[in-house]
Amino acid sequence: MAEALIMRDLDVSLVEQASQVMNTLDPDMGALVSDALMHVGVELFREETYKGIEVSDGRVKAVVTNHRTIPADIVILGLGVRPNTELAGRAGISLGVRDAIKVNDRMQTASPGVWAAGDCAESFHLVSRRHVHIALGTIANKQGRVAGINLGGRYATFPGVVGTAVSKICAIEVARTGLQEREITSLGLEYVVGRIESTTRASYYPHAGEITVKALAEKGSGKLLGAQIVGVEGAAKRIDIFATALHAGFTVEDMINLDLSYAPPYSGVWDPVHLAVRRAAAALTGRL
Amino acid sequence: MAEALIMRDLDVSLVEQASQVMNTLDPDMGALVSDALMHVGVELFREETYKGIEVSDGRVKAVVTNHRTIPADIVILGLGVRPNTELAGRAGISLGVRDAIKVNDRMQTASPGVWAAGDCAESFHLVSRRHVHIALGTIANKQGRVAGINLGGRYATFPGVVGTAVSKICAIEVARTGLQEREITSLGLEYVVGRIESTTRASYYPHAGEITVKALAEKGSGKLLGAQIVGVEGAAKRIDIFATALHAGFTVEDMINLDLSYAPPYSGVWDPVHLAVRRAAAALTGRL
Repeated sequence: MAEALIMRDLDVSLVEQASQVMNTLDPDMGALVSDALMHVGVELFREETYKGIEVSDGRVKAVVTNHRTIPADIVILGLGVRPNTELAGRAGISLGVRDAIKVNDRMQTASPGVWAAGDCAESFHLVSRRHVHIALGTIANKQGRVAGINLGGRYATFPGVVGTAVSKICAIEVARTGLQEREITSLGLEYVVGRIESTTRASYYPHAGEITVKALAEKGSGKLLGAQIVGVEGAAKRIDIFATALHAGFTVEDMINLDLSYAPPYSGVWDPVHLAVRRAAAALTGRL
Repeated sequence: MAEALIMRDLDVSLVEQASQVMNTLDPDMGALVSDALMHVGVELFREETYKGIEVSDGRVKAVVTNHRTIPADIVILGLGVRPNTELAGRAGISLGVRDAIKVNDRMQTASPGVWAAGDCAESFHLVSRRHVHIALGTIANKQGRVAGINLGGRYATFPGVVGTAVSKICAIEVARTGLQEREITSLGLEYVVGRIESTTRASYYPHAGEITVKALAEKGSGKLLGAQIVGVEGAAKRIDIFATALHAGFTVEDMINLDLSYAPPYSGVWDPVHLAVRRAAAALTGRL
């Protein structure tokens, strides 16, 4: 929304309770997104809490935070999502994490003959091995397909998700998959970080732009746990390599030798993904 | 080279012995590249054989084919690559496929104390399970890293390649990985095809462009065997999803539920990669 309004030449202020925007990223990667927002002209107030709206004659006048009052003509509240499962719960259907509907791999609820799919339903996270609620269109579509096949009398399963998401803020692309540092720590796991800055194309190629890639790997096993990318055009879709590697259960050492595509318009001879997993693998052995 | 010369406003003719350019693609995908070359103004002569060059006063005058004589000021011969291993062979080092140097996973040759890496050396193809010679910078770099680590007294292995390559012809991106139809057939395997036409971004999003994705899967097992992509900006790097899936040994059914990134600037809610593997999976069961 900030992007859309800035592109229409509105003055945009963004109030964020956390220390950085996009708390689905680690703070160091979120800082790159905060910088990008400020760079395109968004006035950003971090570590600041929304308190309410001042209204006059039935129209909004300002947003009040714990630090200031920001005059405003339009207010958009982005406060997160929650599954709307009150009816299901009252009907006796089992609810799970964050009150999302509990389903098995075939999208069956615990109540015979009742199926669920989409933003109202749980998913299984293939990296954390925990049930999660992630309200994204990709997951809803895949769950819907599986539920439909089963309802139609055939057989299909939805094995789970790895937490992939992508966004865009003007020229900046942002992507994440797997677990972030906070999630890894909350599982009681330890990790190493492979973070690199590189270019979206070969460094000497026209329009080569900045890309930062961060890979997280489990200490000991070296298993890939998650990855985050912030960069210019061509950066974000590389997250799909990490997502596919998470499905495969690859270690960062496995990923060093992935036969990824290379030509100067698309990457250096070592893709930024390679560079990040090499850095993580080096951190594992302490040979940086 | 055709792209570079066309962009400098030279008249470019291309003589190709095969029915389509880029014989690392299947003919139907190569046809898209032939079309792209002609679209940017390359005069393309297919199924035509280079016979020689006419020279006058020490300068090239024309290229002669089995069908015509094409006046020319500059002639570039692109006739393939071959490992330059004559010296190694005479020294008694074992050579393998296409006379590339035989190496083990650590890049050791059969001769003690002698190591080889790069365009002179063999690779193991993880899909065909055959030794191959693929002269690409990515492979050379990875082999060189492994050879260097081993030479330095530590331990590393290079498990092999899946045959990934990417190129660009003006606005058209071209990528391939794994085995193409001809290679699958020569191994005695049977396959199904999942080929789709879609868009590089959500279809309603500005600058959504054409992308054709072709996935090949083994009949019976459903194992992914290869993929090819031709499309506009944003198309080619998707091949890395297929490459990573080949390393993982995924079936096309596995790939349907890959948690790939989605936002309208980057893809439809089902990525073109998903659409192609869904089509291939449907072909496997005969339920198209």
